[in-house]
Amino acid sequence: MYAERLARTRDRMGELDIDVLLLSVGADLPWLTGYRAMPLERLTMLVVPAEGDVTLVVPRLEAARVVDQPGVFTVSAWEETHDPVALVAGLAGSPGTVAVGDRTWARFVVELQALLPSPRWLPAGLVMGPLRAVKDPFEVASLRRASAAADRVAAQLQGGEISLVGRTEAEVSAELGRRLLAEGHARVNFAIVAAGPHAASPHHDAGPRVIQAGEMVLCDFGGTMPDGYCSDITRCVHTGRPSPELRHLYEVLEGAQAAAVDAAVVGTPCQDVDAVARRLITEAGYGEAFVHRTGHGIGLDEHEDPYLVGGNGEALVAGHAFSIEPGIYLEGRFGARIEDIVVATEAGPEPLNQVPHGLAVVEA
Amino acid sequence: MYAERLARTRDRMGELDIDVLLLSVGADLPWLTGYRAMPLERLTMLVVPAEGDVTLVVPRLEAARVVDQPGVFTVSAWEETHDPVALVAGLAGSPGTVAVGDRTWARFVVELQALLPSPRWLPAGLVMGPLRAVKDPFEVASLRRASAAADRVAAQLQGGEISLVGRTEAEVSAELGRRLLAEGHARVNFAIVAAGPHAASPHHDAGPRVIQAGEMVLCDFGGTMPDGYCSDITRCVHTGRPSPELRHLYEVLEGAQAAAVDAAVVGTPCQDVDAVARRLITEAGYGEAFVHRTGHGIGLDEHEDPYLVGGNGEALVAGHAFSIEPGIYLEGRFGARIEDIVVATEAGPEPLNQVPHGLAVVEA
Repeated sequence: MYAERLARTRDRMGELDIDVLLLSVGADLPWLTGYRAMPLERLTMLVVPAEGDVTLVVPRLEAARVVDQPGVFTVSAWEETHDPVALVAGLAGSPGTVAVGDRTWARFVVELQALLPSPRWLPAGLVMGPLRAVKDPFEVASLRRASAAADRVAAQLQGGEISLVGRTEAEVSAELGRRLLAEGHARVNFAIVAAGPHAASPHHDAGPRVIQAGEMVLCDFGGTMPDGYCSDITRCVHTGRPSPELRHLYEVLEGAQAAAVDAAVVGTPCQDVDAVARRLITEAGYGEAFVHRTGHGIGLDEHEDPYLVGGNGEALVAGHAFSIEPGIYLEGRFGARIEDIVVATEAGPEPLNQVPHGLAVVEA
Repeated sequence: MYAERLARTRDRMGELDIDVLLLSVGADLPWLTGYRAMPLERLTMLVVPAEGDVTLVVPRLEAARVVDQPGVFTVSAWEETHDPVALVAGLAGSPGTVAVGDRTWARFVVELQALLPSPRWLPAGLVMGPLRAVKDPFEVASLRRASAAADRVAAQLQGGEISLVGRTEAEVSAELGRRLLAEGHARVNFAIVAAGPHAASPHHDAGPRVIQAGEMVLCDFGGTMPDGYCSDITRCVHTGRPSPELRHLYEVLEGAQAAAVDAAVVGTPCQDVDAVARRLITEAGYGEAFVHRTGHGIGLDEHEDPYLVGGNGEALVAGHAFSIEPGIYLEGRFGARIEDIVVATEAGPEPLNQVPHGLAVVEA
């Protein structure tokens, strides 16, 4: 599998006229080699020249973590007092164009640039993004398992198993995290709990505010499974009876989310999926309150290509996996968001999250 | 506090002739402003020109997370379809020298370089590293609380409250993580559990191997407290009676670790502290088996300046906080490491971890 991915990577390097690809922290490296670099100050870097040997430069004390992939790469371990940047520069040769992994630390980029004064540096996302965005059936199965694990937690939330009123957002967030782990995740990536007026802040940090009766509680949570694939889901519950205004807002949102899922058909430009949700929300008078894009790709990264956003004319292809998550946010009052992970298939969009989308009302 | 830190940052920018400092993900930004950027694909960047207004560029949907610091920075929120890189470049003006945050994503560096073809790019660690390395009394108190929380988990491990034999490393790692959270951490950063031959791999990933009787179990774990400061501790336990050879190796290590702590006196070059541990281990015949540096700084980052490593002639100053963690690794057989966090003070080195250093023997 890795040898085949390497071949496709090199094909794309050729199309983009890239002489050497340098990958470090982030998901490109595990996608290509099975090895994930530790996100620490000791440099790990895969050096992929257009032709010839691929070398994984790793700190000596992490070399034992590497699982060999014969025919894909060889390992070059550096000692504590060596200079790994010089080692990488030597392996890179005299490239005309370098593509460096999107999340590589800036520190290493500027140090490499001092040794490789190449005329042209590009983000490696240009190479890796479109390749990683298209999931093979094994990857889709992994995402399905991740979504099912997140669904079980969402069902517990909707079923009232997680008490809300009288607890802080931070306490509920911690409990969502524990439940994500209990349902099979290896790591919690985030667990937004935003209640009452806080639900109007899309990336609210769960904090010390105590959840009250009669509030919207927006929960957006996800994690990484042991095989590296991510989940991401948003559901809203209301503590006690919602107001007619809130019910109406939520119905608009639910309709927009469902319509965007239906629109995520192979061949459709990403921005058109965004436009479907945006048009329905705008027609209902909430256009200004939908302050973010409709979705993002998901895989080994929680956010990756493709992005469902205005300006992205890229067409969906079978195997694209992404969130569909419109939201409506009324500052100082309340907000709501509904999010599923969806895979584009030749047979139409397949939502991986199956828990109900309606506004669950839990006892206050 | 942030205004004073900003003034010191600008002093250092002046010394290094830096025209603009650009900070993104990582601990520099919260140290300087109290705000931590989300590590996602939407750019957050603090633009600090040598003189004039400081601007925090944030995605609109995260702007509500920012706590204003009047007199320190103003916020510039960008919309989903805007180009934040162009916004940053506009704020940066026409700098001769740019310093960019060490962990800033490479993608943003190369995109910025296309818009700011500056002759000189530097890692911001040159500015921020030495400033952040010296902890004020409040920061030392934070690190003391973090170490005490990790100590409580280590004591549970040494006291046999965490069963080992018959469980996988991964299960024990997950339990250490749960206990770190229960003792007050907000996030688990790592929980290495390396048993038997795996203890010879310093950065081993806890895996599916079942822990046996008669094995060394190396546990290296730490997390981040709610205030952002980190813990990091390593203790070894042995399941049943250790062999005389292992006892001897461990005594050498314990002596080397204690001697290095004692050597961490204000004014001593970092590399000399490393040399103290290394000399004792080498004299006992294990020099080749001590494959890593003696320690790293700690604070808002789990690893930061100063590094106790050969080649670092920087002298310790009061307020430096760092690990002292020599190890001995016999490939294929076993290994051991002992780690404390220590603060250099005018009154001498103060170890923040207080749990015993001896090889705890737990029932097999």
